[in-house]
Amino acid sequence: MQEQVDQQWMQHALQLARLGLGTTSPNPPVGAVIVFNGQVLGEGFHEVAGEAHAERRAIDDAYARGNGHLLPGATIYVTLEPCSSTGRTGACTDAIIKERFARVVYGSTDPDMRHQGRADALLRVEGIEVCPGVCKDACDRLLRSWFHAVQTGRPWVTAKVATTLDGRMTRRQKFWLSGVDTLRYAHQLRLESDAILVGGNTLRTDDPALTVRNPLQTPSPRKQQPWRVVLTTNLLSLPPMAKLFTDEHHKRTLVWENVKDLRVILNELYTRYGVVNLMLECGGRLLRRFLEDGLVNEWMQSISPMVGAGPDSVVPGDFLPNEFIFQREELIECGRDIIIRGILG
Amino acid sequence: MQEQVDQQWMQHALQLARLGLGTTSPNPPVGAVIVFNGQVLGEGFHEVAGEAHAERRAIDDAYARGNGHLLPGATIYVTLEPCSSTGRTGACTDAIIKERFARVVYGSTDPDMRHQGRADALLRVEGIEVCPGVCKDACDRLLRSWFHAVQTGRPWVTAKVATTLDGRMTRRQKFWLSGVDTLRYAHQLRLESDAILVGGNTLRTDDPALTVRNPLQTPSPRKQQPWRVVLTTNLLSLPPMAKLFTDEHHKRTLVWENVKDLRVILNELYTRYGVVNLMLECGGRLLRRFLEDGLVNEWMQSISPMVGAGPDSVVPGDFLPNEFIFQREELIECGRDIIIRGILG
Repeated sequence: MQEQVDQQWMQHALQLARLGLGTTSPNPPVGAVIVFNGQVLGEGFHEVAGEAHAERRAIDDAYARGNGHLLPGATIYVTLEPCSSTGRTGACTDAIIKERFARVVYGSTDPDMRHQGRADALLRVEGIEVCPGVCKDACDRLLRSWFHAVQTGRPWVTAKVATTLDGRMTRRQKFWLSGVDTLRYAHQLRLESDAILVGGNTLRTDDPALTVRNPLQTPSPRKQQPWRVVLTTNLLSLPPMAKLFTDEHHKRTLVWENVKDLRVILNELYTRYGVVNLMLECGGRLLRRFLEDGLVNEWMQSISPMVGAGPDSVVPGDFLPNEFIFQREELIECGRDIIIRGILG
Repeated sequence: MQEQVDQQWMQHALQLARLGLGTTSPNPPVGAVIVFNGQVLGEGFHEVAGEAHAERRAIDDAYARGNGHLLPGATIYVTLEPCSSTGRTGACTDAIIKERFARVVYGSTDPDMRHQGRADALLRVEGIEVCPGVCKDACDRLLRSWFHAVQTGRPWVTAKVATTLDGRMTRRQKFWLSGVDTLRYAHQLRLESDAILVGGNTLRTDDPALTVRNPLQTPSPRKQQPWRVVLTTNLLSLPPMAKLFTDEHHKRTLVWENVKDLRVILNELYTRYGVVNLMLECGGRLLRRFLEDGLVNEWMQSISPMVGAGPDSVVPGDFLPNEFIFQREELIECGRDIIIRGILG
């Protein structure tokens, strides 16, 4: 019974956490809700790195609602283990102890070596009941890109590809492959990405804006346009009047020339630009390089209802050195197209 | 009210009709049910060309059940307009008049110029009420391959392709692309096909049996193995010990050498061998020829969860002269694979 109640409130905290998708990097999206006698006293989510954590926001919300006096004895649900090291915002574990909560229920364990379940001991010694691992799978899933970045020093890389049924990426006369519903879905993905990467060839051929436009959900007012990353073999070959260099977001464009090791760039994107979620929107040749280096974590493919489109295969050339097995997580009928999404193993 | 009752019984007749899928060619699958006062007096479906039509089988069934005396005044539901020309089995319209049915409800109109609604007048003049076009779309859908064959003199051609996510048809070391569920689905398709076509290259490389094995439904005892059709550029290059030439069904193997016009072969398959449903299981080059000639009606693709498999594209080469737009009719999660099925426009 208590277990079901806990899961229900954790689902609520997860919904709050998702509101931070796309704005929290390099921090993770986290949600928290404070409950007493089945009533919400306060709730919050982490929104932007450097600002208050979800637990702090929920506590502040409880005070703002006039519920501060009810916190002693209340339960706080949070999707990620409360931090126990003082970062930019003060440790959440300390705040929980100070407010004399009765219970802390959390989902994922923090992979940071400074945390990793350390909160449990700190809280229990103060007589606070701790229930870790509630809705752990769902919480881990929401945090997997951040886990990956923390553990590898590189962003979680999602390859976004649009193909025909026969695996081609181009149509004659440059007709769009994707239907309008799929385009909106793609803009939603951009909304949740910290950076979007293309090759110089895509820049020259398509002159893309790579901005978030008309996604499925209204963007947070805190959302910046994603970084736009261009990898080119020849800087001088890029058209200086391309949108990426001239539009209002031109300061969000990064260019690298003659990259020998993609890992170096990925590491720099994470450590210097805080990119946790990187989306590849490049052509087949560059995608193949990322695949060959084993750097693609997630695959999002829209398949449009055509046969016999252009000669450009989504992954051109002979067998890859290692075939990737795809674990499907979503299959969506998106207008006339279908969308398949999952992880590459 | 009557309309809903009619639709309900027509759905029943459609289920009966489907029992003939795979055995009736060159005739269409047709089902019939005779109803009086909400009770089934008799039912039947057409099973094998040259044998009784569905209406005849339903009437015989009514007599066998001791319901013959109730036929005058009863309603017969049949998925296709009753025939009015005497073929091998005597016109069904005559039989209906003879039994003094009160109503005839049918779905599709017979495209045969000798019929095309002619039954309506013949029946009405005898005082029999005629309701054409009930569940017409579903009946037409079941009959569309037969309509196509009657109208063009060629079989309905279904391209069955199995690809990876990146549109390739091969894996290293000849691992199967498709999962077990997809293989069973493919054998169900073979069960409903009158012939299966491959190129000489597939014969040499894979030595396939092209027989129906372990389909999703138990085959009718009247089902013969499908014709196995091989198109080759060089008869002498085919391995004489290949399964198609040596197994117990070797008399069901047809070989053509150096085919200049695919339409000629298709016409011969229909007119001489009664093939209404032809399935292509050939490689990309031969498939491309069928596409270029505009001869593919239906597309059934299983997509297996791999990226980076072999270099053989499902439709190799440059743009097709005409891109085909695919109208999706089914999207099935089939184990780890997905199956997309629809028609090419």
